[in-house]
Parts: sequence; C-alpha cells; structure tokens
Amino acid sequence: MEDSARARIRSSFAAQTMMATLGAELIEIDAGLIRIAAPILPGSQQQQGFGHAGLTFAIGDSAAGYAALTMLPPDNEVVTAEIKINLLAPARGDRLVATGRVVKPGKRLCVVTSEVHAEHNGASTLIAILQGTMVPVPA
Amino acid sequence: MEDSARARIRSSFAAQTMMATLGAELIEIDAGLIRIAAPILPGSQQQQGFGHAGLTFAIGDSAAGYAALTMLPPDNEVVTAEIKINLLAPARGDRLVATGRVVKPGKRLCVVTSEVHAEHNGASTLIAILQGTMVPVPA
Amino acid sequence: MEDSARARIRSSFAAQTMMATLGAELIEIDAGLIRIAAPILPGSQQQQGFGHAGLTFAIGDSAAGYAALTMLPPDNEVVTAEIKINLLAPARGDRLVATGRVVKPGKRLCVVTSEVHAEHNGASTLIAILQGTMVPVPA
Amino acid sequence: MEDSARARIRSSFAAQTMMATLGAELIEIDAGLIRIAAPILPGSQQQQGFGHAGLTFAIGDSAAGYAALTMLPPDNEVVTAEIKINLLAPARGDRLVATGRVVKPGKRLCVVTSEVHAEHNGASTLIAILQGTMVPVPA
Repeated sequence: MEDSARARIRSSFAAQTMMATLGAELIEIDAGLIRIAAPILPGSQQQQGFGHAGLTFAIGDSAAGYAALTMLPPDNEVVTAEIKINLLAPARGDRLVATGRVVKPGKRLCVVTSEVHAEHNGASTLIAILQGTMVPVPA
Repeated sequence: MEDSARARIRSSFAAQTMMATLGAELIEIDAGLIRIAAPILPGSQQQQGFGHAGLTFAIGDSAAGYAALTMLPPDNEVVTAEIKINLLAPARGDRLVATGRVVKPGKRLCVVTSEVHAEHNGASTLIAILQGTMVPVPA
Repeated sequence: MEDSARARIRSSFAAQTMMATLGAELIEIDAGLIRIAAPILPGSQQQQGFGHAGLTFAIGDSAAGYAALTMLPPDNEVVTAEIKINLLAPARGDRLVATGRVVKPGKRLCVVTSEVHAEHNGASTLIAILQGTMVPVPA
Repeated sequence: MEDSARARIRSSFAAQTMMATLGAELIEIDAGLIRIAAPILPGSQQQQGFGHAGLTFAIGDSAAGYAALTMLPPDNEVVTAEIKINLLAPARGDRLVATGRVVKPGKRLCVVTSEVHAEHNGASTLIAILQGTMVPVPA
C-alpha cells in the first residue's frame, strides 16, 4: 500500500469521534487487513462489568469497513450495509483487538469478516466474529 | 408487568456504563417491548458526521436484550449470542429511538428483533433493523 | 400491480427448477409482498423427519427476493446478496408458507424480511424469520 | 475421531432425505470439520440456470451442523438456531463443495462457519460464506 492510502485511512478514522470516545486506535493497515485496538474503558461496560457488545461491535465493524476501504480507489468511503456478530465469550481484559479482512472486494459490494480478541494477562481469547457487507460511496 | 420487574430492568440498564456514555435513556418498558432513546452526541459520530453504526447497534441490541429480559423470571440476566443489523439510512437527526421486541421467548434461547428510527425535525425515519438471539444467564 | 408485472414474476418463478423440486407454489403476488407455499415432501426432510432447514430457507429467501422484484422496473432480476435465518420451531405439518416483504426498496440494494409458518391440523406456527439484502441485476 | 463417531454422522446424514434429493454426499469427516459435495442437478437451479441459493445454503448449513456434531457426545443431535449466508458469486460449475468448521464448541451453543466453493473446469471459486449457531439436542 502507498503511504497516501494509509494516510487517507488514518484521516477518516480520526474523523470518527466514536473511536476517540471508545479510546480506539488504528494499529495496523495493510491491503485487505485492518487492526483496531481499544481498552475496556470505565464508560464502555455492560451491566456485569465486561466490555459492552456495542464496543466489540464498533471496533469489529470499523476494522471490517476500513479493510474494505484499502481495496478501493482514493475517492471512496464505505458504509456498512449489514453485518452480523456472534459473541463467543465475555469481553474481559486489558484491551480488545479487532482484525478486519476482505473476503471479496467489489465496486458495488465488498464482503468482509472481522474477529475480535480480548487480551488479558498476556493471553488472547477470540470473543467475537463478524460477517458483513460494505458498500462503496463517494468520499 | 409488575413494578418490581420494571425496577429490575432500570437497575440493570443503569449499570451499563456504555449507555451513559452514549447518553441513552430507557423510555418504555412493557412485556416483550423496550424502547431506548439516544441523542447523536458529538462523541458518537462516524467520519461523515452522522451517528456511528456502533451507536445504532448499541441501542438496538440493548433494546432487544431488555425486551427478552421482560419475559424471564427475576433471577435472570441475558447476553447477546448473536445479532445482525441491516443499516437502511444514515443516522441523522435529533435523536435515535430503538424499539426491541421478542419474537419467540424461551428458557434457552430468545429470538428478538429491533428497529431503530432517527427523529429529525419532527419526522421519524427507519434507519436500521436487527434480528438476533439472546441467551438467559443467572443474574 | 399490473398484470404484466405479475406475469413476469410467475415466469421467473417457473424458471426456478428448485421450486418445482420442492413442490413450491407462488400463492400471492402484491406490491412489496410475496407468498410461497410448499408441502414437506418425503424428499425434503432432515434427520428427524421434519422439513429440512434448506426447504424453509429456499422458500423464505425466494419469497423475499420476489417481493423485492415487485418494486423494480420490468428489466430487472434480483439476486440474494445475503440473508440470515433464525429457526424458531421444527418444520412440522401439512405445508409451509413463506411471506416475503420489502422493508426498504432501492436501485442498488433492497432490504427484505421473510416469515415462514408451518400449517398443521388447521393451526399456523411461525417457524422462521429471515432478514436480508437483495441486489437488482439486469434481466 | 473414532469410527463409531464417523458412522453416527454418516447415519444421520443418510436420514436427511433432502441431501439425497440434492444429490449431496458427505466427503470428509474430521473433528470440527465436515465436507459435503453436491452437483448442480437440473432440479436445483434458480431462474438464470445457476445453482439455487437454497442448494448452496442446504449443503453449507448441513456441513456446519455436522461439524458441530463431531464435537459432541454420542447421544446428541444438533439443530440450526440461526445462520447467515453471504453469496459471493453465482453457483456455476460441475459441483459445489461445502466445508463446515467449528469456531467455538459448547454444550448449549456451538458457533460455526462454512465456506462453499464451486468447482468448474478444474478451478474452484468461493461462492458463499456462512456464520451461525448450532444447538445440541438429545438424539
């Protein structure tokens, strides 16, 4: 990937105020693969004190969306048409890491998946998988 | 529904710090139906300034989960096993309202749906539909 | 709806050999709503003798797809981009009836839902709900 | 895996009359992984002459379900609670092969995925991915 493409993704990510609210960071940008990490902030919890499904979803969906964007020409953004999440284990630990991947790129539709792991005391547990469709739109 | 059941749901909702972060409020509690409203806060936006899919998901998922909880005995909580969201229109406006409903209650699995509307200048637009599965767990 | 639009849908349905294999019939065509019925044939069962999830899916998906087609100009077909099914009860009975509906029509994407009921001894039970996305393609 | 476990899965598969109707065969049984192949029979087509989504779904869902069953004690069957399919390309070719895998086994819920490839003139194309939840039930 060119530096300009990476810069474009960083700039779009920085414009998502929700990512800042959740403390999320873009930690890897490659062609067809994006990683986003986020702590489980005091303000991101569900009723049992684990990370909220909304947190897991938000970084999983964003990682998948930006993975799609890495495959598109510079004048595009993407929006999520639909995405499904299966939650496998509580979001417990020091931080969550979402890895988004492109399964099938396309100009009309881009099919993506995402995995979210929770890191806790040096171990990493798969807590969610997502499968969805991103739609390119003009930037 | 009994007042004690309503109080239990209000108490669980209040323990979800993510709901406070998003400014979300529980505005209706009935047997099999929950409504949650949230403004599109400056910190809840995506890169184009609309509400983030994570916001729409978080209130849609929570409304569906609490709808399931209204059908269960007092010693239960629910967790989301899986849920899918189709996004229909940008989350634009003064506030979002999620309505969760139970399609099929059950002791092992509870199938739910949710609709999210955006209210803007007095009009209400359906912006997302969700379909998922909640699992009862001991409180 | 015009008779020509109804005829076009009947003709497309008749070209789906899978529908004939399953004994499925188009029993209602309206703007944004399609009903398909099918018996649980001896050759359509799963290992416990109930209707196979593939049968329930096939008529639920087709009803949703044709519901989308009722909203499109004459020179279109639709293909399923994605669809999710939640199975609520065994497919037991005399016949299954799938009702597909359009939630949001569109030239690029059409969001649809479908419900499948099993009719048994005069009673009708909701056995599955589907939520998906259809994509218009040139006929 | 023990031979008795493999025999049990072959026996359950043989009881699914839908698999015979579709010409489907169980071609691989391993712990957590099942492969099912099916031709695109004259009676399994959609309106454009490609394999029907119902065929792709039926073998993808069954492969995922039997993959779950390989992880369970002998006195179980599984039923699909929910599953989602993203269709990536037309089902065109000599035969379809579905590969089901277990992502997270469990006594209450088992999370699974499935991939379906179409084989055509010696090439293999990924045409669908599925993500779902299987529920163990007494045999």
